[in-house]
Amino acid sequence: MSVGRTLHCMFITAVVSFTLGAYYQHYDTLCRLCYVINNDPYAFHIKDKLYGTLRFFKNSMDRRKPNESCSCLPRIMKYGFPGMEDLRVYDDFVISYDRRNRIARWVYEHLQASSIVNTTGNRRMAEYKADLGIPSDFRVNTTDYKNSGYDKGHLAASGNHKSKQSHCNDTFYLTNIAPQVGEGFNRGCWQKLEAYVRDLCKRYGSVFVCTGPLYLPRKSDAGKWYVEYEMIGPKTIGVPTHYFKVITVESKLPTGLPYMEAYVMPNKEMDKKTDLRSFLCDIREIESASGLKFFQGLRRSFFFGINYSNVPELYKRFH
Amino acid sequence: MSVGRTLHCMFITAVVSFTLGAYYQHYDTLCRLCYVINNDPYAFHIKDKLYGTLRFFKNSMDRRKPNESCSCLPRIMKYGFPGMEDLRVYDDFVISYDRRNRIARWVYEHLQASSIVNTTGNRRMAEYKADLGIPSDFRVNTTDYKNSGYDKGHLAASGNHKSKQSHCNDTFYLTNIAPQVGEGFNRGCWQKLEAYVRDLCKRYGSVFVCTGPLYLPRKSDAGKWYVEYEMIGPKTIGVPTHYFKVITVESKLPTGLPYMEAYVMPNKEMDKKTDLRSFLCDIREIESASGLKFFQGLRRSFFFGINYSNVPELYKRFH
Repeated sequence: MSVGRTLHCMFITAVVSFTLGAYYQHYDTLCRLCYVINNDPYAFHIKDKLYGTLRFFKNSMDRRKPNESCSCLPRIMKYGFPGMEDLRVYDDFVISYDRRNRIARWVYEHLQASSIVNTTGNRRMAEYKADLGIPSDFRVNTTDYKNSGYDKGHLAASGNHKSKQSHCNDTFYLTNIAPQVGEGFNRGCWQKLEAYVRDLCKRYGSVFVCTGPLYLPRKSDAGKWYVEYEMIGPKTIGVPTHYFKVITVESKLPTGLPYMEAYVMPNKEMDKKTDLRSFLCDIREIESASGLKFFQGLRRSFFFGINYSNVPELYKRFH
Repeated sequence: MSVGRTLHCMFITAVVSFTLGAYYQHYDTLCRLCYVINNDPYAFHIKDKLYGTLRFFKNSMDRRKPNESCSCLPRIMKYGFPGMEDLRVYDDFVISYDRRNRIARWVYEHLQASSIVNTTGNRRMAEYKADLGIPSDFRVNTTDYKNSGYDKGHLAASGNHKSKQSHCNDTFYLTNIAPQVGEGFNRGCWQKLEAYVRDLCKRYGSVFVCTGPLYLPRKSDAGKWYVEYEMIGPKTIGVPTHYFKVITVESKLPTGLPYMEAYVMPNKEMDKKTDLRSFLCDIREIESASGLKFFQGLRRSFFFGINYSNVPELYKRFH
């Protein structure tokens, strides 16, 4: 065989084998992806995005009839999921939106010393605005708070997101806003708690905060338990009875355990001089009342300590 | 060149090219998957499963430090999501579980004529049982309903799932159970509605049903709106004020549009003779009160008709 012809053959072999290899990998991944999508509701929910990760070849398995697949998911959910907790990812915090009560279920922030100290962002430049990413039926407008008697209270505090103006602006999305009693709460103890979180961040450098509403039941005269809360505005926004913050402070030591504490405050007027630490709360009570689960998969022993009632003791022992 | 040597070269070329092709496809998919995982919270939630779909090569991008990625998601959600609506996929229906009220948010079923007519399953063989897939803090036990004065009411009716005993058993998971007034509701109008759904299925062959609770606000004497509902048992299970069913009947004609109707019933004792059609409700009202969104992405014009108040008219025109 001539060298030219040999090279020609080798070139064709290379191209064919390359394509076969790519197809083999494609097919193998597709089979496994199909399995995940047909059995995991979260994967099924975003199946178009996931199939989109595979290029070059046709995703032929996608065309199988729903009934032929191994799970009932594609068959039963043919007309879409009626709801999956809305998750909204902003530049500097993440929100889960409660479509029923039209306020967040929780807001998760990660504060770093740089974002606290640097104050490029100015809250006077920011304006309350509706988040157009929320379907219009569940979307709150500023008019919904008008004459309600409640403050438009921040869940992710604007003071925590000042490293960029855009981050500060994001905190003014109405998805991050909830009805709070103004005097004695939003402009009182709650504000003190927010300042305390920023103080922790300045000391230790890295703090995670999860903030959210609670609708706690109370006992009636007849001994039965009832949940009762107000709804305000034409869009019927729920007014939580309480608010919580779960705070995780990361140790400066590379091997140090994080420190965690949790607060619950009633959404009512309180004496500004009330000691913050009187609002300390067992995280399990917050979990039980909110239906949330914090630090999933981490054991409680992962933490250095929980809810120290004595501040000097905390600062002495935690680095 | 000898033929043997040429074949040897070609074999090596083939193997190398095949591997390169597979690696190229792997790397391309991995890059796109990384992007999806870092930007979509649902993908991020199941990232280990998704990375697991790629085999043969190391998923090196997974090891990038969270801070280097393009989105804030991996950084902020380092300690996990506090909650994403629990989706439970059973063999014959799908449930979204409300951890806060310890009952389902919605239950989706697809009824086919075969599963209604065939009655292998017997509800006398089934027992109420806790679903161990729900974290213990939010898991309901049969004792929680004891002495509450409420029935353990099915959301997905056991009569709809009789094609196999295991399907019938699944409907007795306490995730599919909610507190219902017994006499005059669960054993009255609600039961009639369930029978009506099965009747539709026998006529037309394929029916989708979504069932769930509502907690409707009522106006106080002072003109303010309040949500109020009871909590029962040591696990504090919410007692809904109303229940809804959204029913979609598929046409027998290959090109026929589906027909849709929606019902809302108060969770209280009612006269058994009440006409079912007096409970018909605009689906948008259910959406607004429940925070759910049905038939996402489908326009209302997709349906043949909505909420016909006249039954003979419906049966005459729908095939």
